[in-house]
Amino acid sequence: MKNVFLFNESYHMNKEILGGKGKNLVEMQRINLPIPNGMIVTTDGCREYFKNNNSLPTLIIDEIKAGIKRLELATGKTFGGENPLLVSVRSGAPVSMPGMMDTILNLGLNDKTVENIISRTNSEKFALESYVRFIEMFSEIVMGIDKEKFHKNKSNISSLREVIEIHKNFFKAETGKDFPQNPLDQLLFAVESIFGSWNNERADIYRNLYSISHDIGTAVVVQEMVFGNFNNLSGTGVAFTRNPSTGEKEVFGEYLLEAQGEDIVAGIRTPEPLHRLGTQLPEIYTQFIEIANILENHYRDMQDIEFTIENGKLFILQTRNGKRSPYASIKIGMDLVNENLITKEEAIMRIDTTLLPQLFTGNFDEKDLKNKKFLGKGLPGSAGVAVGKVALSCHSIKEGEDYILVRKETSPEDIKGMSLAKGIVTVKGGATSHGAVVARGMGKCCITGCESIKIDASEKFFTLGDTVVKEGDIISINGFNGDIYLDAVKLEPPRLDHNFREFISWCKDIKKLQVRMNADTPTDIIVGKSFGAEGVGLCRTEHMFFEDEKIWSVREMIIASNKEERDLALEKLLILQRKDFYEILKELSGCPMNVRLLDPPFHEFLPKTEKDIVKLADFTNRTFENIKERISELKEENPMLGHRGCRLAVTFPEIYEMQATAIIEAALQCKNENIPITLEIMIPFIGGISEFKYIKERILNKIALVFEENSDSIDFKLGTMMELPRACLLADEIAAESDFFSFGTNDLTQTTYGISRDDSIKFIDFYKEKNIMKRDPFQSIDTRGVGKLLTLAKTLGNETKPGIKIGVCGEHGGDPKSIEYFHDLGLDYVSCSPFRVPIAIVAAAQSKISKTN
Amino acid sequence: MKNVFLFNESYHMNKEILGGKGKNLVEMQRINLPIPNGMIVTTDGCREYFKNNNSLPTLIIDEIKAGIKRLELATGKTFGGENPLLVSVRSGAPVSMPGMMDTILNLGLNDKTVENIISRTNSEKFALESYVRFIEMFSEIVMGIDKEKFHKNKSNISSLREVIEIHKNFFKAETGKDFPQNPLDQLLFAVESIFGSWNNERADIYRNLYSISHDIGTAVVVQEMVFGNFNNLSGTGVAFTRNPSTGEKEVFGEYLLEAQGEDIVAGIRTPEPLHRLGTQLPEIYTQFIEIANILENHYRDMQDIEFTIENGKLFILQTRNGKRSPYASIKIGMDLVNENLITKEEAIMRIDTTLLPQLFTGNFDEKDLKNKKFLGKGLPGSAGVAVGKVALSCHSIKEGEDYILVRKETSPEDIKGMSLAKGIVTVKGGATSHGAVVARGMGKCCITGCESIKIDASEKFFTLGDTVVKEGDIISINGFNGDIYLDAVKLEPPRLDHNFREFISWCKDIKKLQVRMNADTPTDIIVGKSFGAEGVGLCRTEHMFFEDEKIWSVREMIIASNKEERDLALEKLLILQRKDFYEILKELSGCPMNVRLLDPPFHEFLPKTEKDIVKLADFTNRTFENIKERISELKEENPMLGHRGCRLAVTFPEIYEMQATAIIEAALQCKNENIPITLEIMIPFIGGISEFKYIKERILNKIALVFEENSDSIDFKLGTMMELPRACLLADEIAAESDFFSFGTNDLTQTTYGISRDDSIKFIDFYKEKNIMKRDPFQSIDTRGVGKLLTLAKTLGNETKPGIKIGVCGEHGGDPKSIEYFHDLGLDYVSCSPFRVPIAIVAAAQSKISKTN
Repeated sequence: MKNVFLFNESYHMNKEILGGKGKNLVEMQRINLPIPNGMIVTTDGCREYFKNNNSLPTLIIDEIKAGIKRLELATGKTFGGENPLLVSVRSGAPVSMPGMMDTILNLGLNDKTVENIISRTNSEKFALESYVRFIEMFSEIVMGIDKEKFHKNKSNISSLREVIEIHKNFFKAETGKDFPQNPLDQLLFAVESIFGSWNNERADIYRNLYSISHDIGTAVVVQEMVFGNFNNLSGTGVAFTRNPSTGEKEVFGEYLLEAQGEDIVAGIRTPEPLHRLGTQLPEIYTQFIEIANILENHYRDMQDIEFTIENGKLFILQTRNGKRSPYASIKIGMDLVNENLITKEEAIMRIDTTLLPQLFTGNFDEKDLKNKKFLGKGLPGSAGVAVGKVALSCHSIKEGEDYILVRKETSPEDIKGMSLAKGIVTVKGGATSHGAVVARGMGKCCITGCESIKIDASEKFFTLGDTVVKEGDIISINGFNGDIYLDAVKLEPPRLDHNFREFISWCKDIKKLQVRMNADTPTDIIVGKSFGAEGVGLCRTEHMFFEDEKIWSVREMIIASNKEERDLALEKLLILQRKDFYEILKELSGCPMNVRLLDPPFHEFLPKTEKDIVKLADFTNRTFENIKERISELKEENPMLGHRGCRLAVTFPEIYEMQATAIIEAALQCKNENIPITLEIMIPFIGGISEFKYIKERILNKIALVFEENSDSIDFKLGTMMELPRACLLADEIAAESDFFSFGTNDLTQTTYGISRDDSIKFIDFYKEKNIMKRDPFQSIDTRGVGKLLTLAKTLGNETKPGIKIGVCGEHGGDPKSIEYFHDLGLDYVSCSPFRVPIAIVAAAQSKISKTN
Repeated sequence: MKNVFLFNESYHMNKEILGGKGKNLVEMQRINLPIPNGMIVTTDGCREYFKNNNSLPTLIIDEIKAGIKRLELATGKTFGGENPLLVSVRSGAPVSMPGMMDTILNLGLNDKTVENIISRTNSEKFALESYVRFIEMFSEIVMGIDKEKFHKNKSNISSLREVIEIHKNFFKAETGKDFPQNPLDQLLFAVESIFGSWNNERADIYRNLYSISHDIGTAVVVQEMVFGNFNNLSGTGVAFTRNPSTGEKEVFGEYLLEAQGEDIVAGIRTPEPLHRLGTQLPEIYTQFIEIANILENHYRDMQDIEFTIENGKLFILQTRNGKRSPYASIKIGMDLVNENLITKEEAIMRIDTTLLPQLFTGNFDEKDLKNKKFLGKGLPGSAGVAVGKVALSCHSIKEGEDYILVRKETSPEDIKGMSLAKGIVTVKGGATSHGAVVARGMGKCCITGCESIKIDASEKFFTLGDTVVKEGDIISINGFNGDIYLDAVKLEPPRLDHNFREFISWCKDIKKLQVRMNADTPTDIIVGKSFGAEGVGLCRTEHMFFEDEKIWSVREMIIASNKEERDLALEKLLILQRKDFYEILKELSGCPMNVRLLDPPFHEFLPKTEKDIVKLADFTNRTFENIKERISELKEENPMLGHRGCRLAVTFPEIYEMQATAIIEAALQCKNENIPITLEIMIPFIGGISEFKYIKERILNKIALVFEENSDSIDFKLGTMMELPRACLLADEIAAESDFFSFGTNDLTQTTYGISRDDSIKFIDFYKEKNIMKRDPFQSIDTRGVGKLLTLAKTLGNETKPGIKIGVCGEHGGDPKSIEYFHDLGLDYVSCSPFRVPIAIVAAAQSKISKTN
């Protein structure tokens, strides 16, 4: 088996053998673009190296030697000769693999060849500088010597020759060996080092993290050097074939004359915008624009191209699909479709859904960030960025001004304050804490678990790191990565234009999964519909309970000592809830509406402050002590597994009866007004069929009464949340009585794993760090464990009721990885917060396309 | 199809058709015992009655009439005639069915036949009394008139004739009809009423409760009356063929001359012991003893016989297997085996395991109960009875005196107090609360959830109902039913003798499931071994943490801010734990020892009182504030699903490393001293294979080090608790790495149902009451839901590791119904608290026998 190939021998070979970088170079040579010649040691060679106890087998060494011979023949230069062959050596794996060693330039230089180059080019400075750079790169990358030490060597020394001597001596002192003078030795060292770096710790961790096989290995690209720093007819540059920020069709780039690629990156000199090259070297510019077009058409995507001009001659050093902003990714994809370069499906598949939230929230201006003081870091709770005054309590927030709410943690009582704030920071809690969940639902930026914030007991300031931040001070927060800055960071604006809307309509035409929203108010519904939602998959009736003064009637109902008292309070609530449901149904105007009956344990609704306890005592004509006692009675050891969901309806059937009445009366009112309705009612936290039947019977009886009183009726479905393992295990029985299933994947994940989301923050980071969990199962569905229950429930459900409608209303309904899984499983719909609806629509379309291909 | 049969036509028919009572009478007639003649309306007849809209079809009425004709022929008496036929009418379903109407005597009496009887017997009083009783019974049972009203009629009236008139008038006033005079009408009314009562509410609830089909129906037995109150050669009695309390082989009973069966029950006259009959009516006595022997041999079990003597002639009215004390049930079973009447297997199958706990705890003297004041009722938490002084805190308990600990709830800190108390009462908590679980483990009587107890804030007294009970007052508590009495109720002593031990050894020979104990101390192990335990299935290392002063080092370890501090505290604990393990292994002397590594969340170990916080601050050289802050940091929303089990070992691997070191060093010490050991180490709360592998590697590395340091090694197994749905769903992967599985069915039930045991008290009673749950799933395993996960885990486990050892160490391991399920599932062992070991052994043997048959 051959392990070393010249570029022109490898046209038929694939990326798995040549590596990504190598394959692109070979491909460019194949279509006759100006590429410095070279050869590739393949990934097969890398595996042979491992088999041979991590050293190059003689056969491969011989092949490399033979390869160099042929490269010498092709270039007319020789390794260590009069016209010396200099090469770059780069690693290039089949998949992008940060963590490995990367690039060595100018290999082939030694004490002799450097003089030959001086005499051939008459440019001593260029040659000596190249040698210095080679010694530094080789020492650092191959031998692992700290770069900083070399920089020290150079200080206060003016002669480059002197630097070379000092460097070489230093090399010997550090390694015990002379700096290698034989270019072939240099090359073999370099190849071995690159292969060896495949197994360094950083690369290993990276592969584990992204589930990349440890066996694929890397290739090594050995390519003739071209020098942008050779003379004033030389230069180097980087360009995108379209604007990576706006997506506009215009070649967009920068260049520097008399410079090597590194010089642009290092930022010592400011590069020129590419169009200036049209003036400076017009022929080269025209040639480059032509090549850029060829490459974009060839790869059918926007390209990110590196080039070098050596003494008036253009060389392309690299091309790859260019990174772009979420906005540009949509614009470019749609333009490429309109240019007939790609299909709609391809355009959709190219969208990275994880970046879409930036479209709705904007982002920090990267440049301005550098001028701002970084304060500290929490967990990214909800995507987006926000700038505002610090508010340490909801009461500090004044309407019409921008605030960042900073709290130890948030609770349902903070909803109003959260809705007024621009962004939220919590000291406690993870990505699935109350704060984060609500913030994502509101499309608001949020940082959670910023445990280094110490809020002062006076609640007038907090400290973060060494900075004291007072209420009213301005901070800027980044929910994409958890960063917190002092003062106002400049913002790039959000973009959500007609392009985007058209793109979403493409996705809707293609996808199979219905995408609904989790929404509790008419405002939610307006937002969600504008984002493309096709109905409501989860209307949490309890969220309405916190609005305005409703909470006091809710509390009165909870505090009730007996059914009579409870009924009185429920009567008040009936009127309020009926109005809520009517307004929502009207706004939906026939789109499906799925209402979940009361789910959380009572104590979540109870007052927490002394002041509110006093108010409740007044409101209900009870004593302060009595209210406190009742609150303590309602406290639970494990509220997540306590007296909640349908269990409340077993002990107090009148609550669900009231809610069913409110829903049905609202629907009848709509019918009277010729507003179309599609209604589903859902019972949460069902553990088995007896429980469901018991509640179903009571609800249906109540609804029959409402129909009778109104001499009218409507169609509706009555179904179950599937959020407990037992319900999934017995889904065949449940399907016999239930019109549909809605998977509550949050609670199902909690119970299947036995992990409380609220408490997981104490250990889940360790799990991810130590690679015990690849992903947080509360963000992306655990397909192997929880997924088994979903599959079982679907199979069993269909046994009893073929084609039973099944949806997902947990937060996973807005997560692209999970959506793909739900699509593959053949579910009917997902439901997520309104601000995640576009993401879900794109992800659903992508799932459909990848399943079809 | 025929629906009415005379006794002598029905010898071939079964209990399902004749009912239990009917079948026994027919059987006695078949073997020529003196039975009053009669006929049976079958359960088929009952079903016809339902089909005919709850009224008797004409065909059946005709059959009943024909049956009466033949009975008249057989007895020489006629319905309503000169020599009047009087009958008893009783219901008799195929299974024992409380809640239905029962017995009507003397049917056939009317204004005319009562006179005929007077003239035939010359006993006006007897005849009139019989008529009065018939009117009362018929009115109450058939017409549903309140018995008390008749009793009022009788007050201050001396003439029986007058009573009859008043009764009849009252009957007419209540029902609007004359008291029926036609005996056939009387009979048809009675039969219809009995059939109708099959569907009364009480019967319905009973059938739901015991999963009895609603379709089986009841039969009606119509039998010629015999009168024990006829004259002084008449009488009535009840006898057991063996002593139902001691099991001794001696006919044991009571009788009254000139009385009907009711008179014995009513307790108006004191009955004579049966042997006195040998003096009063020696021939009858001899005949009875002979019949008793025949019946016992015929039914191959101790019989409970009702008899009546009418004018010097003996009649047997009923025989059935006699109820007996748990002690007698063992003694009688063993004696019957020795008498070659039954097999060992039959003797074992006859034991009601739910009553066995009385053997270890004794019971209240029933008679003495009537003299004591009943205070109130809680939930039966742990079987047994106890008498002692009230202690409202553990500190009030003085050693050497009997105390009942009464607490709002118990916590691990109360362990010592609980172990000193005779019994425990808690205001909060259910049958699976901490108090109940620990009490059962200790074999101690316990009542939980007695919410009507109000403990005064001074903690010097409590009120229960209208009684104030002070500390030091004596109360008596019954853990079998939750009853609490004031003062000391007399006790019957517990019995656990050589009979019992031999019986257990029979069971051990037969059973297949190994029975182990959940035990944490050498004392536990001595008790468990004496009860027959075959090893330890669950040694909860954390229980040891509460003993003596160990808790302070545990707290120091928890409070540690970093690994260094934690390691220092762990070093102290290592020495203490090693000693614990050594003592336990020594006591076990080669029986299997399964140690579970640390499981509960840290905060369970932390001090709860200010005083203890101060002590911990001193002990660890920290500030009071610092300790309080740490305690608050460790607080969790849902500790059951929090940072516990192996999650502690992922974040702090040094804890399990210390425990593994302690266990292995203890085992090596045993090996040195030639003490045999069988060691299993088990990791709790595993959710998936990555987690287990991560911890396993660290533990094995540590153990390898210990082996190296000691230049010695031992065999041991390392396995997983299976207590989370996800572990069960992925058991195939886990089995690849785990030596064994141990189902933790408590936590598995909590997570599968999504129910926190601690909080379930608020709603689980409603669930049982409303028949949504047949049984508390924390007491008997939920075979349909949780069982599916167990089955799945076993199947998947065996796919990867055929024959993998699987046990159960949840509390279900001591529950007979659950044990039967585990046996059927083919598990290897169950483990339960030492005091439940004999129950588990009997249940395991029963499971094996019923599976074999």
